[in-house]
Amino acid sequence: MQRPGDDHLLWREIDSRPVYDAKIFTVRMSRRAAPDGREVEYTLVDSPDWCNVIAPVRRSDGTECLVLARQYRQGAQRITVEFPGGLVDDYEAPETAARRELEEETGYTAERLELIGRVNPNPAYMANTAFTFLAHGARRDSAQRLDENELVDVALIPAGELLDLVPPDFHVHAVMMSALHWYRLYLADGLGYEARVDRWRRSGPIGYNRPSGGGSV
Amino acid sequence: MQRPGDDHLLWREIDSRPVYDAKIFTVRMSRRAAPDGREVEYTLVDSPDWCNVIAPVRRSDGTECLVLARQYRQGAQRITVEFPGGLVDDYEAPETAARRELEEETGYTAERLELIGRVNPNPAYMANTAFTFLAHGARRDSAQRLDENELVDVALIPAGELLDLVPPDFHVHAVMMSALHWYRLYLADGLGYEARVDRWRRSGPIGYNRPSGGGSV
Repeated sequence: MQRPGDDHLLWREIDSRPVYDAKIFTVRMSRRAAPDGREVEYTLVDSPDWCNVIAPVRRSDGTECLVLARQYRQGAQRITVEFPGGLVDDYEAPETAARRELEEETGYTAERLELIGRVNPNPAYMANTAFTFLAHGARRDSAQRLDENELVDVALIPAGELLDLVPPDFHVHAVMMSALHWYRLYLADGLGYEARVDRWRRSGPIGYNRPSGGGSV
Repeated sequence: MQRPGDDHLLWREIDSRPVYDAKIFTVRMSRRAAPDGREVEYTLVDSPDWCNVIAPVRRSDGTECLVLARQYRQGAQRITVEFPGGLVDDYEAPETAARRELEEETGYTAERLELIGRVNPNPAYMANTAFTFLAHGARRDSAQRLDENELVDVALIPAGELLDLVPPDFHVHAVMMSALHWYRLYLADGLGYEARVDRWRRSGPIGYNRPSGGGSV
């Protein structure tokens, strides 16, 4: 986010070209110019947007649980527990994608989805967004409808245990940790994403002191 | 994390080969076998580990602040505020890398670093870890010593404002959101990473009910 006096930080794109099609993303090289004019080539990764859904439900014994997906992750080479989610298709609204992924991966539907957070997975070389939705009125409606190579177990995990213990098979995914963070904030104040940004906007500018400026520490 | 009865979720690596050197990472293709024997080829990204440091300091007016780095991010094409950090070099301990990055990017040193969290940036295709350290006894000791193409402003942001407002120029990085999440948990219970995992271990197995098993919801 640009603030007054930030010109010395701003780079400018000169050109860019795709260099490798990795199927799930495209590698692109981009020439960028620093404020002083020197040029540097950067590696970028083009990826679709992602979405995930936090779906609270009551287990038959009354315990509030969250609907999670357990699956083997090819990168980490281990089984993880994650909020259901996936890629946002071209021309698809993030909420539509979230609803579709929830239904396909878990068989659960929701009366209403509310956007509670968003994050870039890695702004160093990605431009895409991961959207986090909260499912209101979730219930099990059908069986899973998995893609051909998806092997996913649905797990109902007590919400309190996930929030309190943040277990190692969950905290193995930064985007899921971000989603849980948004959910923790939501539980504290009930704000959806737009209301949260609005609250930040109304709070006035945050003090970003430079140590050389406003006094040493 | 494998649990009893998980064999139907486990894939096995057959072979893998690097296919593209993108400088900051290597793309690798890996053939994996599903439990039923069918083979699928997956794209993986080999990347070094990362580290970041949360450094609380007092501003001259007494306000507790966190030391942050403001810089233009080439992927997101915007200025972000992030905890200082970077790559863990080959054969370097994560804590050594964190201390080095804190000093180089901000000119701050710390009496002691404590590991408070770790996360995989994206287990779908990465195997690396981002470590989050808390700096105890941080103080400004020298000037920044930036790499040739780094343009970084140091910003002291009141800790309460960052935690309370999670501003849009911060929540643009999932790994930083994860780090802030770890810090929020630390503030609540004072647990470092190993103590937190130990607490999880001693709490006994979390109930991972399958909806088809332990009763419908």
